[in-house]
This record gives sequence, C-alpha cells and structure tokens, in this order.
Amino acid sequence: MTGGDQARAEAFLAAREQANLADLVRFLAFPSVSTQSDHRQDLRACAAWLADHLRAIGLDHVALIETSINPVVYADWLHAGESAPTVLVYGHYDVQPAEPLELWSHPPFEASIRDGRLYARGAADNKGNVFAHLKAVEALLATSGRLPVNLKVLIEGQEELGSAGLDEFIREHRSRLAADISLNSDSGIQGMRLPTIVTGLRGVIGLNFTVRTGAHDLHSGKYGGVAPNALHVMARLLSTLHDEAGRVAIEGFYDEVVGVPDATLAGWAELGLDEDYFRTQIGSSGLIGDPSVPPVVRAWALPTLDVNGMWGGYTGEGSKTVIPCAAHAKLSCRLVKDQDPKRTLGLVEAHLRRHLPAYAELVIESWRASTRAVLTAEDHPAVQAARAATSAAFDAPCRLARTGWSVPIVEMLSRELGVDSVMLGFALPDAGEHAPDEHLEIEAFNRGARAVVGFLLGYGGAARVGAGGGGQTAI
Amino acid sequence: MTGGDQARAEAFLAAREQANLADLVRFLAFPSVSTQSDHRQDLRACAAWLADHLRAIGLDHVALIETSINPVVYADWLHAGESAPTVLVYGHYDVQPAEPLELWSHPPFEASIRDGRLYARGAADNKGNVFAHLKAVEALLATSGRLPVNLKVLIEGQEELGSAGLDEFIREHRSRLAADISLNSDSGIQGMRLPTIVTGLRGVIGLNFTVRTGAHDLHSGKYGGVAPNALHVMARLLSTLHDEAGRVAIEGFYDEVVGVPDATLAGWAELGLDEDYFRTQIGSSGLIGDPSVPPVVRAWALPTLDVNGMWGGYTGEGSKTVIPCAAHAKLSCRLVKDQDPKRTLGLVEAHLRRHLPAYAELVIESWRASTRAVLTAEDHPAVQAARAATSAAFDAPCRLARTGWSVPIVEMLSRELGVDSVMLGFALPDAGEHAPDEHLEIEAFNRGARAVVGFLLGYGGAARVGAGGGGQTAI
Repeated sequence: MTGGDQARAEAFLAAREQANLADLVRFLAFPSVSTQSDHRQDLRACAAWLADHLRAIGLDHVALIETSINPVVYADWLHAGESAPTVLVYGHYDVQPAEPLELWSHPPFEASIRDGRLYARGAADNKGNVFAHLKAVEALLATSGRLPVNLKVLIEGQEELGSAGLDEFIREHRSRLAADISLNSDSGIQGMRLPTIVTGLRGVIGLNFTVRTGAHDLHSGKYGGVAPNALHVMARLLSTLHDEAGRVAIEGFYDEVVGVPDATLAGWAELGLDEDYFRTQIGSSGLIGDPSVPPVVRAWALPTLDVNGMWGGYTGEGSKTVIPCAAHAKLSCRLVKDQDPKRTLGLVEAHLRRHLPAYAELVIESWRASTRAVLTAEDHPAVQAARAATSAAFDAPCRLARTGWSVPIVEMLSRELGVDSVMLGFALPDAGEHAPDEHLEIEAFNRGARAVVGFLLGYGGAARVGAGGGGQTAI
Repeated sequence: MTGGDQARAEAFLAAREQANLADLVRFLAFPSVSTQSDHRQDLRACAAWLADHLRAIGLDHVALIETSINPVVYADWLHAGESAPTVLVYGHYDVQPAEPLELWSHPPFEASIRDGRLYARGAADNKGNVFAHLKAVEALLATSGRLPVNLKVLIEGQEELGSAGLDEFIREHRSRLAADISLNSDSGIQGMRLPTIVTGLRGVIGLNFTVRTGAHDLHSGKYGGVAPNALHVMARLLSTLHDEAGRVAIEGFYDEVVGVPDATLAGWAELGLDEDYFRTQIGSSGLIGDPSVPPVVRAWALPTLDVNGMWGGYTGEGSKTVIPCAAHAKLSCRLVKDQDPKRTLGLVEAHLRRHLPAYAELVIESWRASTRAVLTAEDHPAVQAARAATSAAFDAPCRLARTGWSVPIVEMLSRELGVDSVMLGFALPDAGEHAPDEHLEIEAFNRGARAVVGFLLGYGGAARVGAGGGGQTAI
C-alpha cells in the first residue's frame, strides 16, 4: 500500500463525518449498562447492532461469542498475507450507569451535540473511542479495498465489571485471538495539543486483614490502662507502612523496580504533569512521596501502598467507652514492571507480622486476583507507528505516557497470549467517564480516526519490512 | 446508742431473713427498665411500691420527686440531733434490659433462689444492694427506736441512663440533700473473704475527631503515590498517642497525677489483682502500660487514653481501590484525682494538632459532658467506720479499693454539694450485672445488711465524739 492510501482514507472520513456521527449516535442509544442486571437485553441488542455494523464495514467472521456474562463481538479481516502483522483492535460496548440522572444537562442515551462535543453515556468510554477505530478500518477498506495488516476485532460487554471472565474467554480462543499487537482504544490523550499513547499500566494486589487483641470488647473504665486495644495496635501497624515522606517503608518493596529511561522521563516532563497539576487534580496542597522524584514518576512508574479502608470499635452516634478487641483494614498496592505480585504480597504480609505485638493476632485474607504491571517496549514497531501516526493526525508531537491503574484486558492479553498493547484512545482528561455529562470532543474523534488509519498503514509497512529482513531496518 | 444496738439489730435481721428476701423478690418483680420507653409505667409502679416500703420501715417525708425522666424516691429520718452526722443513702430502682432473654436460666423478673443465690435482673445492680441498706435501717429503727445518724435516702430511676438530669435535680434540692457523707450502695466486694469498700473513682472525658486530606476520595491508580491518604494520616496520628509500652505519650498528660500512699498500695497488693488476674479477666496474654507499675494501679490510679472507635474509606465487602479523603476516630480518657478535665482535653487536642501534617485538616468535637475523678480521704471517719463494720460483718479484714470507671451520682454529689461518698455495695465480681443470670449471693446480702448497721452505729458514734471534741479521739 502507498502514501496515497492515507490521503484517500482521510478524504473518505472527511466526506462521511456527519454519517459517522449519526452511526455513533445510534450506537450510544443502547443503554448497555453491564453493572445493572435489568439492562441485560440492552447489552445483547447493542452487541447485535454492533455485529451488523462490523459486517457493513466489510469485516469477516463476524460473531457474537458467549462468555460467562455478555457476548463478545468478534470480527476479522485476514487477507494481508502471512508476512503482514496481525493487529487485535480492542474496545467495549458496555457502559457505566448514567445515574445520578438529575446531574446530566443532556439525556444520557439520546446523544446531543453542542459546541463541538457529543454528550452521552459512553461517548468517550468506550463507544466513541472504539468507533473511531472502526471508522478508520472502514475508510481503508472502502478506499483501498484492503488493509495493510491482518485485523481482528474484540469488543467486549463486561469491561465495567472488571472484564470478569474474559481471561477464561481468551484462554478458550487462543488461536482465534493470536496477534502481534493489541491496539486498545480504551484510553485518552492529555490534550488536543498534547496527544499521547499509553504503553504501560501498573498492576495491583491487595489484602484485607484483622488485628485481634482479645475475645471481647472491654469496658475502658474497668480495664483501661491494662488491656491492649486493637485500634492502638492497628494504628501503630499502619503507621509503620510508610516513612515520614510517604515512601513505602516495607523492606525490599522497591527492590524489583526498574528505572525509567532518561528519554522517557524527558518526554514525560513535557506533559505538564507537575506538582501543581497534581495538587489541582487532587484538591489538596500536600503531595506525598519522595520529593526528589517527579510526581508523574511516582504516579506511573513507582509502586504504592494505600490503605483503602479501616474500621473497628464503636462507630455510631455519640460515644461508647469501649476497648475494642478487633480492628480491620483493607490495603492495596500498585505494582510496576517487573514486580512479582506474589513476592510483593509476601513482603507486605511479613512486614505486618513482624510489626505485630506478641499479644495480638493477625488474620490476613489476600485478594483472589492480582494483576501484574504491563509495559510495551517503547521501541516496539507498533509504538513507533502509533506515535508517528498520532503526531501527524493531531499536528503535534505525540508523547508516550503510562497510567497508574490497571486495564484488565491489557494484562490478560499479555499474560494469556503474550500480546502487548498500545493504547490509542482519544478521550480528553475532562471527558467525564463514569460521571454525568460524559462527552467526546468531535475533533478528537475525527483526528483519532485519521491516527488509526496512519497507524495501520505505518505498522503494516514497518513490520512487513522488518519481517522480510530487508535492508531498511536500522540495526 | 450502745454495743447492744448492733446485737439487737442483727438478731432482728436474722429472724426476718425469709421475710426480707420475700420483700426483695417483690421489688425485683417490677421490670423497671429505664432504657426502654415502654417500661415507663413499670418504673412509676416500682417507685410507688418503694415509697410505701420506706414508709413501712419507719422513714419520714417519703416522696416521689419528679425529675426530667423518672421520679426520685426520697425519704429521711432526721431525729438524731444536730451533733449527729447526716448520711445520704444512695441507690437506684431502675435496671438494665433483660435481653437476650433466651440466655437466662431463670425468668429475669420472677426471682428464683438456687444454691444460696437469688437470680433476677437487678438482684445485684442495684435493687439487692440498696435493699440491704434499707433492711439495716429498718432493723435499727425497729430494735432501738432510733438511728445513730440523721438519714436521708435518695433512690433514683435513671442510673442506667447515666443519671441523666440528676445534676439538675441535685441543684434544685441542695438543702434537702445536704449531708456529711453519701453511703452509696451501687458497688461490690472482691470476694466473700475479700470485703472491700470503694473510695475513689476515675473521671472521664472524650472527643470525636475527623482528619481530612481532601474534598473527595481518589482513585488509587490515578493518584496513588502522590495523593495524601487520610487513613495513613489517622494511623500515624493515633500511633503518637502512646509509647511502645502503652503509656500515654501526650506531653504533660501525667503532670497532675497524685501518687498512691504506700499504705494504700500495700492494701491493694492483698487483693490479688495481679497480672494473672487481669490476663484472665481480659482474655489476653498481653497487658499494656508501664510494667514497673502494678496493674491495679494502672487500672485505678493512673489516667488512660483509649481509642474507642475509628473508621474511614471503604469498609464493605470485597475491595475498593480508593484513597480516602477522611478518617474518623473517637477517643476517651479516664482521669484521676486531681486532673482537670478541661486541661487534659486541651493537652489531647494540642497533641493532635501538633502531630498533624500541614496538608491535613482536623475537626474536633468534644463530648458535652466531662466527669472529674473523685476520691474520698482514706482517713475520713465514714471510711474508717465502713471499714471496721465491713470487717466485722464479713469476718475478714476489709480493704480499701477504687474503681477505674465513673459513677455519675458520686461525681455529681461531690461537684454540686461537696459531699464525698463511701461505696458500700455487696455484689460479687461474678454477679452478672447487665448480663443474663444476674444474681445476688444471699450470704453477701445478709452480711451486707449487718455491715450497714455497724457503719451507722460506728460512724454515728465516731462523728458525734469528734464533733463533741471529747477525749476519745486520737490526735
């Protein structure tokens, strides 16, 4: 395929802008809320509509494949030849609940356009984003009759349920889903002038635990000054988890942490995610963590430990002079590449046991699931292609970014299939995912579709050359 | 009055043992549960029955006096002459709820006698105890025709509500309640062979507070490692309140504490309230506090600070990876004579503020009420008389004791009227106050009534001699 392919596809997209938005409005009209069981039929209807749409844009093997919850919508186009790479486009058709409805300025399931924005539940997360990918595919197929890569599409219906059961689905369909890279539409950019692609996600582990100092709560008048208090023990225990600055104080916690390359750090520095940015986002004057490390590094490339909940004793109205015999806490850690979840959980548990007074008991219950961090190499041809295409489409240099949270499917594809991901979504930071008045910037959608066209052409060309062992790849 | 008075009164009590128990069973039949509003009429009926009984045993000015909740039953006998001291006998006719009923082996409001014990709600706390006092008064009046002291009786109906509103009642009836000593029946002895009277009670103060680190809870994936966590701040704050051994680490906290006289300590050492005793009572191998101070001193004569409750963040099922913006705690301190509640509260508040990071906010809400510690001088003639009479009645040396908790009326009488208390009740440590199968040891009741006879005779004689300036008092 040639450079003309990009121009023709872009012309097609430009001509179809209104029609594409009208299609997206239809996609957004399904209240496909996966977390509310009375929307089960809406999810199926949405999946069926989406399957029809995939057929209409020229994809093959379109199928609704059952999972333990909602069907996956699958399609592919596998005619680029064996030397062409295979790209797995990922998205999800389920959405968050729209409640509280009274906080919406626009009806959440009747998309409205105002001031260049499309308002609806799912406009950004993820229907709008994945639709930009589909429209790019359609444009290439319509204008060139073919794609520069072999393409597979996986659009799930339970992302808002943490992609529950998707790992089982992936294991059952290994060969059908095999790919060289996953192009994940479920992300965003830092700004219209700050396009970004995401190459790394932190992992997460957690545990709940109970500290017990006796069989019964005691009367503080009778036994105060003599009896141990489970809340005192819990407070001392939790206070040992961090140092004064907020660094995790568990021995060995940072041992497996890999530093961030200078070039990457330099790119992050251009994103403007400085202390003021975080202070504004957080709504607090205080930031914690090693002050010698930039906050964006603390948020993306260092592991953390947060106590998510704790409770014990009398928590009702007024007062009760009780010495509580039990206290409870929930904590979780964000992990970075290459931290081993089991090893880190072991360190946390050992720390808790080591700091417990001899008279107290500790009962630890680990989470059933743990998620490793994932990180796609920044020199991966798909990353390079995505970066170049996004820079061109947004007319601004595209930076590499990471996120501090996990996206289950990214970790599952890495773990189960060894497939890395490039996250190329177009939601802006104020898109309001999971909140009222969620919206999509229409210009970001249009530029996004052009970026995906550019990615497919660039990656298809680059990977084919590499695979062929031609002289054009640098050593 | 003469030594023969004791013998005659004891003979009267012995002859009337069955009749007295039968009267007590009637008193116990009223379900006078002050904490449950549907028992309001039972409380009034119980008060009316009690008033009739006070008239029947020969007291004057019997009256039900309204308070903001339930009537106080008042009576007096004021014919001992101006040189005789005035004793205010205190008790309460309200009881705790009997629930859970299924855990009683005997119906709680139909008293049963088995193995020398009388089982019923209120058998110990406080109907049985105050009845022993009334039977002693009756015996003296019946056999000698008079009492050695001027006597006032105050039996309230809201002790189980913390004597709510009683301070107002006391202020309104200052002159009617004026006395040289209050003989308080609402306590117990350490054992049949370890009779004790209580001369000191700790006070109590408390506060609830909130630590806030931001306006909203945050996503730990987005902001973990950068955003402050209110639970971390709370844990660190609470961990500063005690040292490693469990001593309170607030500056100045122990400044006002008065030591315990050696003679008192020697007496306490004989009570057997050693580390093993407390370990058994508490159900824990670990005791906290200064190991160089006997546990009974930590429980009776040192101030304490206990966190009674704390909570924040996600406390439901499973997990939620949230960084909480708020954490809450309730704490209370037990005070000893002569700690000033306001000063100590001020120390606690200043400590919390001093240990708070600059980026966090603290909102403190103090309890509306605070209670000072009270301590009756061990050489007070009433203490001496109670001790001698109790030793004789129980045929074992009576020790002086204290309690670590507060009894509201004791503090109110001290604060409002300057009247000290001697606590002379006869419940054994396993009496089950506030629990199923509450019971009274009948022998303790009988010996208790004889101890009260001895106290009235001894204190009346001693105080009269002292007041008269006769040569029989030692210098």
